Amino acid sequence: MQSHAPALPRPAPAVLERAVAALRERLGDRVSTAPGILAQHGKDPSYHALAPPDAVVFVRSTEEVAAVVAICAAHRVPMIAFGAGTSLEGHITALAGGVCIDLSEMNQILRVCAEDFDVTVQAGVTREQLDRRLRPHGLFFPIDPGANATLGGMASTRASGTNAVRYGTMRDSVLALEVVLASGEVIRTGTRARKSSAGYDLTRLFVGAEGTLGIITQLGLRVHGVPEHVSAAVCAFADLGGAVRAVIETIQWGVPVARIELLDEVQVEAINRYAKLDLAPLPTLFFEVHGSERSVAEHTEALARIAAEHGGQGMRWAHEASERARLWKARHDAYPAALALDPTRQGFTTDVCVPISRLADCILETRQDLVQSGLTGPIVGHVGDGNFHVILLVNPEDPDELARAGQVHERMVRRALAMEGTCTGEHGIGCGKLDYLAAEHGAAVGVMRSIKQALDPHGLMNPGKMLPPGPP
Amino acid sequence: MQSHAPALPRPAPAVLERAVAALRERLGDRVSTAPGILAQHGKDPSYHALAPPDAVVFVRSTEEVAAVVAICAAHRVPMIAFGAGTSLEGHITALAGGVCIDLSEMNQILRVCAEDFDVTVQAGVTREQLDRRLRPHGLFFPIDPGANATLGGMASTRASGTNAVRYGTMRDSVLALEVVLASGEVIRTGTRARKSSAGYDLTRLFVGAEGTLGIITQLGLRVHGVPEHVSAAVCAFADLGGAVRAVIETIQWGVPVARIELLDEVQVEAINRYAKLDLAPLPTLFFEVHGSERSVAEHTEALARIAAEHGGQGMRWAHEASERARLWKARHDAYPAALALDPTRQGFTTDVCVPISRLADCILETRQDLVQSGLTGPIVGHVGDGNFHVILLVNPEDPDELARAGQVHERMVRRALAMEGTCTGEHGIGCGKLDYLAAEHGAAVGVMRSIKQALDPHGLMNPGKMLPPGPP
Repeated sequence: MQSHAPALPRPAPAVLERAVAALRERLGDRVSTAPGILAQHGKDPSYHALAPPDAVVFVRSTEEVAAVVAICAAHRVPMIAFGAGTSLEGHITALAGGVCIDLSEMNQILRVCAEDFDVTVQAGVTREQLDRRLRPHGLFFPIDPGANATLGGMASTRASGTNAVRYGTMRDSVLALEVVLASGEVIRTGTRARKSSAGYDLTRLFVGAEGTLGIITQLGLRVHGVPEHVSAAVCAFADLGGAVRAVIETIQWGVPVARIELLDEVQVEAINRYAKLDLAPLPTLFFEVHGSERSVAEHTEALARIAAEHGGQGMRWAHEASERARLWKARHDAYPAALALDPTRQGFTTDVCVPISRLADCILETRQDLVQSGLTGPIVGHVGDGNFHVILLVNPEDPDELARAGQVHERMVRRALAMEGTCTGEHGIGCGKLDYLAAEHGAAVGVMRSIKQALDPHGLMNPGKMLPPGPP
Repeated sequence: MQSHAPALPRPAPAVLERAVAALRERLGDRVSTAPGILAQHGKDPSYHALAPPDAVVFVRSTEEVAAVVAICAAHRVPMIAFGAGTSLEGHITALAGGVCIDLSEMNQILRVCAEDFDVTVQAGVTREQLDRRLRPHGLFFPIDPGANATLGGMASTRASGTNAVRYGTMRDSVLALEVVLASGEVIRTGTRARKSSAGYDLTRLFVGAEGTLGIITQLGLRVHGVPEHVSAAVCAFADLGGAVRAVIETIQWGVPVARIELLDEVQVEAINRYAKLDLAPLPTLFFEVHGSERSVAEHTEALARIAAEHGGQGMRWAHEASERARLWKARHDAYPAALALDPTRQGFTTDVCVPISRLADCILETRQDLVQSGLTGPIVGHVGDGNFHVILLVNPEDPDELARAGQVHERMVRRALAMEGTCTGEHGIGCGKLDYLAAEHGAAVGVMRSIKQALDPHGLMNPGKMLPPGPP
């Protein structure tokens, strides 16, 4: 059964009042309690219920974040870091009230080092902003969740996207972090070296911690050279099984695709409408290959052969940059396109990831279950990683429909775990997947709790997320 | 000044006696207190002084490790995990006495899944054993520190080696772990999915923790398809600066080398003698390129051009597998070859890693300092990552010489940190680099201490390693 956000104790009004007064003393009118602002900061683009914070602060420097955290800590008021608000598991909802720390004005790109293929950015820089800045240097940043998220937020959810099959996820892309701890102390993890064996890997600990251990204020990131040659292609398949088997074979043959994305026919129709494309309404793969002209030619041949063997109905290559951009824009808009299928409903996304050899079983069994449920749910996925989503369309006001969606999700997670996969490949736990953390990790959740207790003893950093309620 | 292992409190003899009796009850004659066995388990191949444990246990299963840990925990006796004993920073020395847990008999390869490019192994499996098992499947495991280390040990030091520039380090290769915690409880981190956003990244926390947070008993590892085509080459350079600048240009041009290794003329002479090669006694690069026949040809052309531009004196290609094997065997034997230069001395290795743009400065300044010190110290490195070693030859009985080596090391680390690098790229902190953890990480060491305190409250897991003595 889908978990609902648990009721959490909130700070007393008098305490909040004193905390807000102290924040105003430090930040002046960059502290807001206007209902509209609070509401904007208490809801993500998914079905999770609005849970506004008691105040929003707009910070402009690490020192300000540290000061805000120290004030909140002194008053025992919860804190929630906020970037672009595009996460999907209720990460930014203020389940225990408290102060939302909006980092979107910390949007300076502090250094681009083309020689070392790395950059230093403030946490509020968005991925599209970074990419625009990198382009003249012949560089790009590969991690691309659909939305134009902030890099601090992407690190906090351990985001990935379409390029992960070749370039890895935020786990692999973050070299170093600056983090404000629950005490207000500022630390730096990592250096600009490519690798290190010096001490515990705190960088990887804060990446994916969903703001529950500290607030990321600055990041060192690896970037990549724009490939000499890029080709993208679209290929429709007679059936979903054929499309997935083509993916499996591509990966197992070691064809070094940069992207390999699946959209089922429901999702194809959704993006046809939303992005005004005219793709055949069939299960479809989007491919992209990076390399030299020769190697790209070699790999595209291999892909065409594999696709044809699995019922691929002619591959359409997009050689022009503008054509490719249109294609990938449509792919990145899969989520809003799915939502647009039914404006009366909201998105309930699932996000399992399994070993590639189990992907066909996992997707086909999920689809069968989905059909039986009677719910609408386009399937879309970063299938080269074994990761896919069903975007269930639900009316959060309809308890029966929400329950059915929860049951489809529950079965999907159990299926993925039985196949030695994970309940979430890239979205995170937030408050939406709390039920599955222990199902996936068992006794290791105790270690997570110990770490949380050690670094945030008063439980003030994004409470109610990541770790289900339980004994400390 | 080089740190010496601090004197640590040891368990009382009566306590040890009771603990050993309890261990004997569980493991029978697989508990040894024979002086020869203790000595073998208390010294690594470096200059670090012998510090034998009070007992060695030879475990055969996770259940046995858990039982041993529970017994040691109950008696408050320190525990040190031991694989092949090939680490270089005193990691396995029993500075506070206690029980050495030898995992070398836990050497089962539990699963090879060619379809998913992953394996499951017990912690005592060595990298060469794994590679032999993978070969018939057309697979290989890329992480190759010089020695034939165990995979549990390699995970614990976050090892890398010659292939890291293309395939990453143990950080990137470990999918999942089974770990026995300080309490004796067994947890599993990670799944077989390629990526996950579910919870804190405990896998990366235990990778590189040097056995100070728990004992790794089992690992899920990514493996790779043997490339269709491989070419290796050797190229001598007129001077060290030219060789390093060729490396920098190779990386900055994005030539996808699988390996790019530097040996200075001292190291070349050492391996000529040790491996009976006849390389020109000049600074030398070893290269390897992986891919299709066409792409390998393309990249070797690029490498030849870059080398020639920087004073490379003709590149010698090794196309035959046996010739390549001989070359890489010689490279892997760099450490024993260096030691063989002077049998009266022992190895004091350094291991800095800097951003690639600073590599020439770092190596050339280090070399100048080395010449002034009057010490012998071949330079060898995984230069594609910005990582290199000076293998200082020291007489540990000569305090003056040891002090001079310590000073060279100290200056080298300060230089690397000033260049935004790390004090250790792949060897770890152990007890040899304790002085530099805080220099590199500053206040973040406090977070490391909190985690250590949370997971090992009695300080029994490999005491005296990783974290310098200090307030909890």
